[in-house]
Amino acid sequence: MTTDRTRVRRLPEKASTDRATLHAILDAAKVAHVAFADHGQPFNLPVGTARDGDRLLMHGSTGSRLFRALAKGAPVCVTVTLLDGLVLARSAFESSMHYRSAMVLGTPREVADKVAALRIMSEQWMPGRWDTLRAPTAKELAATLVLELPLEEWSVKVSDGPPEDDPADLDAPVWAGVLPITSRYDDPVPAPDLRGEPPVPSYLRTWSPA
Amino acid sequence: MTTDRTRVRRLPEKASTDRATLHAILDAAKVAHVAFADHGQPFNLPVGTARDGDRLLMHGSTGSRLFRALAKGAPVCVTVTLLDGLVLARSAFESSMHYRSAMVLGTPREVADKVAALRIMSEQWMPGRWDTLRAPTAKELAATLVLELPLEEWSVKVSDGPPEDDPADLDAPVWAGVLPITSRYDDPVPAPDLRGEPPVPSYLRTWSPA
Repeated sequence: MTTDRTRVRRLPEKASTDRATLHAILDAAKVAHVAFADHGQPFNLPVGTARDGDRLLMHGSTGSRLFRALAKGAPVCVTVTLLDGLVLARSAFESSMHYRSAMVLGTPREVADKVAALRIMSEQWMPGRWDTLRAPTAKELAATLVLELPLEEWSVKVSDGPPEDDPADLDAPVWAGVLPITSRYDDPVPAPDLRGEPPVPSYLRTWSPA
Repeated sequence: MTTDRTRVRRLPEKASTDRATLHAILDAAKVAHVAFADHGQPFNLPVGTARDGDRLLMHGSTGSRLFRALAKGAPVCVTVTLLDGLVLARSAFESSMHYRSAMVLGTPREVADKVAALRIMSEQWMPGRWDTLRAPTAKELAATLVLELPLEEWSVKVSDGPPEDDPADLDAPVWAGVLPITSRYDDPVPAPDLRGEPPVPSYLRTWSPA
């Protein structure tokens, strides 16, 4: 959490750390959930997301009524949560999960340079691929909305470490510990209409999910 | 999407399928994001979640100001999103992600039988473990909030299948296909304060993440 109080309102969450932790969580996520109200009804939209410096980029389609409503400039709360494991304590009460979560408040706006923002998102999700593809057409750009949200008002929660059992429970005859969760990319599945036997790109081997 | 129009308002999302798909998505998720407004400010809270029949259970702490605000009965939008892969098309525009997402609208309320609900959640997250642990104490129950949300107003979106490229792009000399994402549990990590060498429970071997 930054200490610049002119720009930051503290969020009522338990843990906060430094901006590097915020950045690491946002960089590890490809999907964020955006909460906003449309005519008084809360909505919660999963969006493709990528960080660019001190702004969060969010990608959507003009074909989505909810994303269009979001693009109108409503206040939002964007949350990213990465689940890292299960914590098996000696009691149900102390059992929990390992996670990294970031919450960002603010009002998104449309980005000025859409192609640059799309390239940044593509390179965060699929590094090395953008330059192997043709440029977006004017029609494609018109059908795409990219929003940016400044990373000014945020909080971060990280849960890690071993179970924290009540001392009275430590002699319970039950195994306790952590079950880590990891994600990976499986073998790439070629498109059925692939033509000309292009090789699987070498840059794929460097990718890993959050 | 159920067709009972007296209970269901259609959500403005593109795809909807049957209730079995909704259930499967909710059952595969351990964390949901809950959007609600508190004094006009949208918040988006990650919560532990499990489905029980036609209700979604959500678990939180009385120590969380946001969860307490949520428990007061505000309208919510609960979204669960599972990321299943990257879709590498021949254009950036058609490149996308495989995901399963469920959105549920409604107003949560506190469950009447908290212990039963906690047991259901524990058994969904960590099957077989609840009966090996001591019962919750009155103090622990007082510190725990469990909310339920009826599965009445919802929508589901599923993105899968190969890239859907523009026919004009099919001859581009670029590999296209899908990069699946899978999650797994790694080897269990014993708590450093484990006493008496209890064995790693055999039920752990039957677990798999979403």
